[in-house]
Amino acid sequence: MPSSGPPSAGSVLALLRDGRPRTRAELAALTGLARSTVAQRIDALIAGGLISEVGGGVSTGGRPPVRFAFNPLARVALAADIGATHALLAVTDLSGTVLAETRRDLDIALGPEAVLGWVADSSAKLLGEVGRRPRDVLGIGVGLPGPVEYATGRPVSPPIMPGWDGFEVRDFLYGRLGVPAMADNDVNVMALGEYFARWSDVDNLVFVKVATGIGCGLISNGRLHRGAQGAAGDFGHIRVSGAAETVCRCGNTGCLEAVAGGAAVAARLRALGVEAASSRDVVRLATGGSREAVDLLRQAGREIGQGLAAAVSLLNPSVVVVGGTLAGAGEHLIAGVREIVYQRSLPLATQHLQIAHARTGERAGVIGAAVMVLEHALSAERVDDLINS
Amino acid sequence: MPSSGPPSAGSVLALLRDGRPRTRAELAALTGLARSTVAQRIDALIAGGLISEVGGGVSTGGRPPVRFAFNPLARVALAADIGATHALLAVTDLSGTVLAETRRDLDIALGPEAVLGWVADSSAKLLGEVGRRPRDVLGIGVGLPGPVEYATGRPVSPPIMPGWDGFEVRDFLYGRLGVPAMADNDVNVMALGEYFARWSDVDNLVFVKVATGIGCGLISNGRLHRGAQGAAGDFGHIRVSGAAETVCRCGNTGCLEAVAGGAAVAARLRALGVEAASSRDVVRLATGGSREAVDLLRQAGREIGQGLAAAVSLLNPSVVVVGGTLAGAGEHLIAGVREIVYQRSLPLATQHLQIAHARTGERAGVIGAAVMVLEHALSAERVDDLINS
Repeated sequence: MPSSGPPSAGSVLALLRDGRPRTRAELAALTGLARSTVAQRIDALIAGGLISEVGGGVSTGGRPPVRFAFNPLARVALAADIGATHALLAVTDLSGTVLAETRRDLDIALGPEAVLGWVADSSAKLLGEVGRRPRDVLGIGVGLPGPVEYATGRPVSPPIMPGWDGFEVRDFLYGRLGVPAMADNDVNVMALGEYFARWSDVDNLVFVKVATGIGCGLISNGRLHRGAQGAAGDFGHIRVSGAAETVCRCGNTGCLEAVAGGAAVAARLRALGVEAASSRDVVRLATGGSREAVDLLRQAGREIGQGLAAAVSLLNPSVVVVGGTLAGAGEHLIAGVREIVYQRSLPLATQHLQIAHARTGERAGVIGAAVMVLEHALSAERVDDLINS
Repeated sequence: MPSSGPPSAGSVLALLRDGRPRTRAELAALTGLARSTVAQRIDALIAGGLISEVGGGVSTGGRPPVRFAFNPLARVALAADIGATHALLAVTDLSGTVLAETRRDLDIALGPEAVLGWVADSSAKLLGEVGRRPRDVLGIGVGLPGPVEYATGRPVSPPIMPGWDGFEVRDFLYGRLGVPAMADNDVNVMALGEYFARWSDVDNLVFVKVATGIGCGLISNGRLHRGAQGAAGDFGHIRVSGAAETVCRCGNTGCLEAVAGGAAVAARLRALGVEAASSRDVVRLATGGSREAVDLLRQAGREIGQGLAAAVSLLNPSVVVVGGTLAGAGEHLIAGVREIVYQRSLPLATQHLQIAHARTGERAGVIGAAVMVLEHALSAERVDDLINS
């Protein structure tokens, strides 16, 4: 049940984070707080550098009233998107805008010290590039390509991350960088990035990542749905009817990923005599006009659509966002998805449903990792700590 | 993003709603509010009758401090659970405890005026029985056996409710009873009732109702997940592999409900030469020891388990609660559910998963309908209205 917390600067800041400057009177009206309380909170936020005075508002006569605006450059966030074979690191401002970034090929199997060591070293360099000091950093968010227990930030038996099981990601990064760290799986982080950057006007969204494997990130009532153990969104291993006899790497048969993931589509291409080692090869072939690749992508879309039809019936989202490597090959995959979802889900759930491509591209992960840090540190409950730190 | 609302009596009441009496000092410490603010809010809540002084707390010397406790009898809620062929109406206190109830066979196809007219007439009688006046009533919550647009309380193309499409349920009941009305579909309301009465210590729950049809209610991050149009939980029409050729009443093939709903199981029994017209007949036969009924219930459980395995993989709930008529026939149905869910979902999602029978029995709907009203009217944002009304 909702409860209003102790009086804090948070509710005033929450209103200003949309970027629109407001007067004291407007903030009092919108928060329901007394004018004197609003004035105190504004003073605290100004002292903390989080908001600034800007040009005057519209006056009803006399001196125009002062307006206040969020200062997105007051602090910065660090954000890392770690994939199976690459890593992307960014510095963002408090609105999630990327200020600087760096990318390198990096094998997750090198283990946590090596991979997170690169993250820490590169963070220092990247901060230097944008002229910010470690004390300006609110925190670092990390997306990892496997299951993560969100409450502790520890990977849990991640299948493609040897050496990472139970690793203390937060402690390691805090030790190296001296800032709070948060970790979650890459698909949750991408869902958060897409939601924040493009869809924050809806309350319910399903993000599906179609790359070598397949996973989902769910936004429910405006919040990421992580589930009891942080394992929500395990979409690659639900059963679809076209996959009845195929054995999946998880040991079960009939899994969606075993027929529609990037690895499965590449294998199907090889069975047709077309050379394809990875999901990137599939995309290259399809954008190059390979009939086989195009047909198989559309078929993969139909199979993913079967699983998504169940997700749409269960969750009634406003938007299904399709991202990941395989979604980068044009309309073929998403056309198959649409075909089945609109056929299989009930009219009430699909009459206003949008099925859209991810729009943040390769940056979804770092934007989401930054948002994870920002939503935590700038929440109404924690802004006071920030001001007093 | 979270924001602390205007100062209200709500945060003090939220703390007391757990039934534990607390002193002013405890309430100040727990809310972070100033002692003087806490004292003002307590005065307002006492004036509104929502809390009372109770016996003294533990003193550190001198006069024992006064403690305050939630007064669940300050007001009452009305709650109606309308099924296809029956209606249950209850008066509850502010903790959701049923004070009086009445049940009758009532065909939903008689239309909204007749059905809701009975609700209104019986509400007046039931209030009289417990000695409460209309002005004591916080509101009325109604569960209906079809899709309801929660924001407006209007049924949306409900398949088994002729005459109800778009009907202004709230206006009608407000006109007859003079109290605020809220409506939602019966499965959401049952999920809320089970969650509130038995599982409020978990954050993520899936409730599945298996009766003539099949539907789900989802609790995500402690809140009911209704979806964009209030159509979430449409679980009866997801595709399961065992149902490939069966045509469903929705027009599609392969729907779960077409093979595992109560109507489908009864039809399978008739195909074996056993007389069974409804889900109640199936339960009667199974509890009477019919081998055919027991086998078919277990098979229905397996088919429902296929759908639930997908829901568990997607949502990673702490608990799956199985309710509805068919769940009333002992362990057969749930044994089939468990068999498939534990086989099909990934270990991380099932290692702590409970799959349990509903425990509130026939009262899940009315308890949930009451909770819908209570959570709304007693929320931190609305308590002030209540005190001043």
